[in-house]
Amino acid sequence: MLKEKLYRHLEPSAWLERGMSPTNIVVSICIVIASCLAIIETEKPLADAHHNLFFVFETVFFIIFAVEYVARVYAAGEELRYRGFWGRIRYIFSFWALIDLIALLPYLLWFGNYNAFFMRILRVIRIFRLARLGRFSLAMQAFFNAIAQRRYEFVLSVIFAFALLLFSSAILYAIEAPYQPEEFGSIPRALWWSVATLTTVGYGDVTPITGLGKFFAGVTAIAGIGMIAMPTGIMAAAFSDAYQTTKNLSDMEREERELYIKKLSDHKSDP
Amino acid sequence: MLKEKLYRHLEPSAWLERGMSPTNIVVSICIVIASCLAIIETEKPLADAHHNLFFVFETVFFIIFAVEYVARVYAAGEELRYRGFWGRIRYIFSFWALIDLIALLPYLLWFGNYNAFFMRILRVIRIFRLARLGRFSLAMQAFFNAIAQRRYEFVLSVIFAFALLLFSSAILYAIEAPYQPEEFGSIPRALWWSVATLTTVGYGDVTPITGLGKFFAGVTAIAGIGMIAMPTGIMAAAFSDAYQTTKNLSDMEREERELYIKKLSDHKSDP
Amino acid sequence: MLKEKLYRHLEPSAWLERGMSPTNIVVSICIVIASCLAIIETEKPLADAHHNLFFVFETVFFIIFAVEYVARVYAAGEELRYRGFWGRIRYIFSFWALIDLIALLPYLLWFGNYNAFFMRILRVIRIFRLARLGRFSLAMQAFFNAIAQRRYEFVLSVIFAFALLLFSSAILYAIEAPYQPEEFGSIPRALWWSVATLTTVGYGDVTPITGLGKFFAGVTAIAGIGMIAMPTGIMAAAFSDAYQTTKNLSDMEREERELYIKKLSDHKSDP
Amino acid sequence: MLKEKLYRHLEPSAWLERGMSPTNIVVSICIVIASCLAIIETEKPLADAHHNLFFVFETVFFIIFAVEYVARVYAAGEELRYRGFWGRIRYIFSFWALIDLIALLPYLLWFGNYNAFFMRILRVIRIFRLARLGRFSLAMQAFFNAIAQRRYEFVLSVIFAFALLLFSSAILYAIEAPYQPEEFGSIPRALWWSVATLTTVGYGDVTPITGLGKFFAGVTAIAGIGMIAMPTGIMAAAFSDAYQTTKNLSDMEREERELYIKKLSDHKSDP
Repeated sequence: MLKEKLYRHLEPSAWLERGMSPTNIVVSICIVIASCLAIIETEKPLADAHHNLFFVFETVFFIIFAVEYVARVYAAGEELRYRGFWGRIRYIFSFWALIDLIALLPYLLWFGNYNAFFMRILRVIRIFRLARLGRFSLAMQAFFNAIAQRRYEFVLSVIFAFALLLFSSAILYAIEAPYQPEEFGSIPRALWWSVATLTTVGYGDVTPITGLGKFFAGVTAIAGIGMIAMPTGIMAAAFSDAYQTTKNLSDMEREERELYIKKLSDHKSDP
Repeated sequence: MLKEKLYRHLEPSAWLERGMSPTNIVVSICIVIASCLAIIETEKPLADAHHNLFFVFETVFFIIFAVEYVARVYAAGEELRYRGFWGRIRYIFSFWALIDLIALLPYLLWFGNYNAFFMRILRVIRIFRLARLGRFSLAMQAFFNAIAQRRYEFVLSVIFAFALLLFSSAILYAIEAPYQPEEFGSIPRALWWSVATLTTVGYGDVTPITGLGKFFAGVTAIAGIGMIAMPTGIMAAAFSDAYQTTKNLSDMEREERELYIKKLSDHKSDP
Repeated sequence: MLKEKLYRHLEPSAWLERGMSPTNIVVSICIVIASCLAIIETEKPLADAHHNLFFVFETVFFIIFAVEYVARVYAAGEELRYRGFWGRIRYIFSFWALIDLIALLPYLLWFGNYNAFFMRILRVIRIFRLARLGRFSLAMQAFFNAIAQRRYEFVLSVIFAFALLLFSSAILYAIEAPYQPEEFGSIPRALWWSVATLTTVGYGDVTPITGLGKFFAGVTAIAGIGMIAMPTGIMAAAFSDAYQTTKNLSDMEREERELYIKKLSDHKSDP
Repeated sequence: MLKEKLYRHLEPSAWLERGMSPTNIVVSICIVIASCLAIIETEKPLADAHHNLFFVFETVFFIIFAVEYVARVYAAGEELRYRGFWGRIRYIFSFWALIDLIALLPYLLWFGNYNAFFMRILRVIRIFRLARLGRFSLAMQAFFNAIAQRRYEFVLSVIFAFALLLFSSAILYAIEAPYQPEEFGSIPRALWWSVATLTTVGYGDVTPITGLGKFFAGVTAIAGIGMIAMPTGIMAAAFSDAYQTTKNLSDMEREERELYIKKLSDHKSDP
């Protein structure tokens, strides 16, 4: 009974009522707060001044997330494929469970003395914890499904973008190399200029200085419009087509899920 | 009779003829002129040279808007919900009436000696007065309704944008922190670079200097295309679908409004 | 007979065959070459070195365009509304005829000694001559008609853009004025930063330096995405809807035109 | 028999099974690796340190591509139009065969002592070799066909973009020339600023300094939104319309191709 109740509260797709279960709402809020703390803590003066406070909060959130993790592993047994000891092992290696585990690890940051780069990596992982929120959003999955239907066109536009990046940096390398060896001395170096121009970011730290270089830079900048226009156009078409589909799908999914869970509970109440 | 006439002239949705009532056109022009003056006045040499002229204009517009405000409160009684003393109190705390009141306050700026920051805030409020024009545009409401129908997708793309902002600044912080502590020393600091890159603004005041940092900056810039493409695509789809809907809606609204006002006047002519 | 033939060759909508008449093709090429020369001539060292050559070319093109202008005025008599002396006067004051006349004037640049600014203005007018090509494109008119059908939404998005520009520069003025009086000392000054940020151009010559200023600059940059997304979305919707319409329209126009000209020639062959 | 087998393996449209033939997959991988090496080799310190290694790899890839080229010329005889000696000559001058030949030439780079610029050009040609991959993608052709259907609108928006570029640089030249003669001293010079602004790249190396110049620069930046919005809108409409068409077309093409090849083999088994 407890296992079933836990499963209902923890597994978003098993929650029959509208929205998220109260347990998952609490967990989500904890994730957001813990991530905000992790972001603020990277500001060194603040971290040094309130070292103990940060440690206390981090410990509290570690305990909450550890308990949540154990509960998830326990409750996973409700699903047929994760039943028994080996089922649980299989669950631990499932995508979202791995994310949960990785999100727990950076707590070790507080113990031992690592080198500075590794410390920063651990801090960053604590922010990637936010990705755990993705599990709760059935809606986001429908959204990305809509985009995924056009993955073929997206792949082609990515290939096209890469070709543009390479060709424009190759041309600028051929023209500007002797005048700015540090910035255009090789194609990989010219890529930094190329990506800033084609995405229309345009930092301006590297710009061509020869007349011919400026001409091809202008052509590249205009081609950059195409590089923005292509994925935007594909996405506009995807959303235009997927509007009704998304709606219907989410309705269908809900019905199916309800049927599935009803069957599950019928099956259980049988014996 | 005067109250009804005032109501017809002041409440845009009660005006039966095409376009805006002459009274509201005059008020709109006054708002635009007053805002232009407020903008020009922030240029200190001009404000000092023509101090008295600005004061006279400001006083004239204050009187006009104060009279308009009192007239609106009086005329609001035409609507059932704002009838009587308590109804007027309720009207004063309604959204647009509050905006009107706030827009009147900065006139106090001329009396008393405040600190410089508060003075600038008061000046800025005088420009936000332009928002009052929003009340007159029934069309703009239809326009935003069309966008609002896709609010779900917009919220998702905002969440996606926030995730991109956080993750890209977290990665650049991990890589660039020791080389540019002032610009990338913490995640909140790296956010300034991140927002400039992902929105493709690209000021260029902060750029990565390490090879790895430039690589991830390039990836971020390309991801920034997606951040622009997503809302653009959603908006394109919204406008494509909403074209007929908007037309039909505005027709329906007009009919309904006419019916409502006809009923109102029938009701009044009864006794 | 000559007048009718001239009219057929000069008036694009009177040309019955596919494409442009040979006369108009020659005129178009002359316009393009003359404009290219005018562009190159602004480069002072080149203009000084080949002063006589430029003068000869300019004279030749002036004669061609002057002859063309006189021929157009003469041929305009084919149309009923431009018949007779007063009709010709009316034609001279029609839109495209005025453009033609203005395009002839900068030839005077070569005679007399004007101040430098006026000289540059005259040179620029010679480039605006390119606008004369607009007359030849019936297609471009159909294209802009398609966009014009959404003018209502475009106007709203322009108003929205102006509001964003004003509000963002007002906020940055309030925050940054004491720290960068030269760049943010008044709202008109802050507008330069504001327009560069909201259009995602991001020159980087002016950036906020305070923390609060950077925060609102980030919000402005994100709002800038909306400022780009809105017209793009409207345009996408316009083109999506107008595809068939444009085709049908241009077919209809051609038929109508042919009928009109047939009628015209029938009318003439009557007496 | 060998010739037919070679033709089936080398000509992408003659491959009956799903995807690419194993031979073409190997060739594609070789092209990608060879191009990556060519990119890395432009980094001088690396090229100098591993000169011999690069030479060995380059020789191996040259032999592979030379063999492939000869095989393609031989196998081309399967097609009627390329049969016999003169047919082969005709094949050698066909588009993709010329690309293949040009891609082979830069190997000569290793022998003889050219001037530096020519060397860089040869290196760049080795990267353009990537364009050879285009031949293998029947899908990409369908993709570009979808875009090509709107070529008419694209041409108009390119003309519009050119007009904007010219007019904005002409205006800025007229205003800024005396203050920044190096950057705005002629229209071709002002074009560099103009293209950076209208594409919203905004390097920031050249910006107007006069008030009037800044005003028109702001107008240009806002017009730049239109320059991005137009092709994006057209592309969005193209993809929205072409979704089903593309699918149907590729299905039809496959059927047609199969029929064609079946007929070819029937024809051969006849005698």
